[in-house]
Amino acid sequence: MSRSFVAAAAQLGPIERGAGRAAVVARLLALMREAKASNCRFVVFPEMALTTFFPRWLIDDPAEVAGYFEDSLPGPETQPLFDAARDWGVGFYLGYCERVPGREGADHLGFNTAVLVDQAGTIVGKYRKVHLPGNATYDPALKLQHLEPWYFLPGDLGFPVFEAFGGRLGLLLCNDRRWPESWRMLGLQGAELVALGYNSPAQLPDNPAQNALRKMHHLLPMQSAAYQNGTWVVAAAKAGPEGGCDMMGHSCVIAPSGEVVALSSGLGDELLPYRVDLDATAEYKRFFDFATYRRPECYGLLTEPHR
Amino acid sequence: MSRSFVAAAAQLGPIERGAGRAAVVARLLALMREAKASNCRFVVFPEMALTTFFPRWLIDDPAEVAGYFEDSLPGPETQPLFDAARDWGVGFYLGYCERVPGREGADHLGFNTAVLVDQAGTIVGKYRKVHLPGNATYDPALKLQHLEPWYFLPGDLGFPVFEAFGGRLGLLLCNDRRWPESWRMLGLQGAELVALGYNSPAQLPDNPAQNALRKMHHLLPMQSAAYQNGTWVVAAAKAGPEGGCDMMGHSCVIAPSGEVVALSSGLGDELLPYRVDLDATAEYKRFFDFATYRRPECYGLLTEPHR
Repeated sequence: MSRSFVAAAAQLGPIERGAGRAAVVARLLALMREAKASNCRFVVFPEMALTTFFPRWLIDDPAEVAGYFEDSLPGPETQPLFDAARDWGVGFYLGYCERVPGREGADHLGFNTAVLVDQAGTIVGKYRKVHLPGNATYDPALKLQHLEPWYFLPGDLGFPVFEAFGGRLGLLLCNDRRWPESWRMLGLQGAELVALGYNSPAQLPDNPAQNALRKMHHLLPMQSAAYQNGTWVVAAAKAGPEGGCDMMGHSCVIAPSGEVVALSSGLGDELLPYRVDLDATAEYKRFFDFATYRRPECYGLLTEPHR
Repeated sequence: MSRSFVAAAAQLGPIERGAGRAAVVARLLALMREAKASNCRFVVFPEMALTTFFPRWLIDDPAEVAGYFEDSLPGPETQPLFDAARDWGVGFYLGYCERVPGREGADHLGFNTAVLVDQAGTIVGKYRKVHLPGNATYDPALKLQHLEPWYFLPGDLGFPVFEAFGGRLGLLLCNDRRWPESWRMLGLQGAELVALGYNSPAQLPDNPAQNALRKMHHLLPMQSAAYQNGTWVVAAAKAGPEGGCDMMGHSCVIAPSGEVVALSSGLGDELLPYRVDLDATAEYKRFFDFATYRRPECYGLLTEPHR
């Protein structure tokens, strides 16, 4: 039986600080409708796809911060996404902020999370971001803050894989893509497609010498990981000018060969559909044949605590 | 004090099956002489730089197989390389086959090894290849054999790093470059430059669909690893038509940004000098800041035995 289907990166343009859920969900639904019309079974939305990327600000108001988190998923405002998945047969990956019940204040309210929803509108699995980039406290010396370790708890679910869409899927979030360990953890569990949403500045005002390398540093680790683990990658950006920051686009589909086979061209809401064949992963999984060729007894340092 | 110096990949063209050590050593010396004239402090020779890549054949004659191994290094035929290092102030990385005393027969005579020699002609360190690709037994179904696991013992020295040339260096060999674990083991120990020699077919007669991807699959994992570990890479090929097989060139220098900053243009003996600044690694080591951002407690599978 063929394990080939159309998947899509569903890039989002900017979401401004005051945007309500209803307007954002309407945009997600429009992309899901386009996905259905494009014969897609699975769409990948960005990290924090329901709100602006608020960790670029230190926000004192607990009510505003709480407003970026979901108390439940689905909730009243997000239920239409799950209904659409079921009615249209379009599953999705959705990045959002997951509130931990009982937590109060403006910091560490919960996790930077992604869920995987199948074509019946059912949550198949959840991942909580392991690699939180940036600073745990406000640094007045920086032009651009990145306060994920202030707002979020470090992910505590490891790197799970899920049976869905006729194959085995893994979920990652943004900065996870720069760490080969993230991909290998999924590869060792047989992941055939990895979905990843991200919010990444296109420029680094505190280190402008890096600006010309941003696209390369986005794609390179994912391409290498796709090849080294024999997996498809579908990666979706929150792109464009958001909250005074230019966010990178370059949403993409990467084949198990490591080739970028689809790439978004704009910085707005954009569906990037591509037919993925999960059986195309087998050649690379055979080539690297972990059981024969990996030497875990030589890798001890990889899991040792840092001094 | 500046930690910038000129290093070079010293690519070798083919070495035929009957070639004697004297002729090969003369070619290596010519490249070292050119290195001295180019103000190089350090040259990287290929894997198995003293002989043809014999694991492409199943050779029954124990005397021929033993002839591909060095009983000692330096030995009578290789002493001139060490003398040149001292006389000219040109250190080197050299890949060779290391005979284990007492082993007999035509298989598993020793290790696929690289040594690091400093500008005084002294051996600073040794690495034995951990990731041996190919088959442990002859497979009549294959057009091209790759019998490293038949001829060699798996490397038993781990992934050491060495203080040399004013910095910290790591050594890898060929197929190691495709495994992110190799690089991370060196990166965790602070490697600032990784030297790597290789023998890689430019075409795969048993899987010609891969031919167009060979160069990408050579460069991609090294570029990604350079970036993810903040290290320079100097990689040297045994290139050109050797023993009925077209061997890949593409010797290169890769910056800690992941950019390929020098690339060989031919398939013969060729020196590829490039000024490397070890201090340029600091920016990437700071960005990835392993102690703060890695989550080794989440990476358990990486060091577990395969089922």
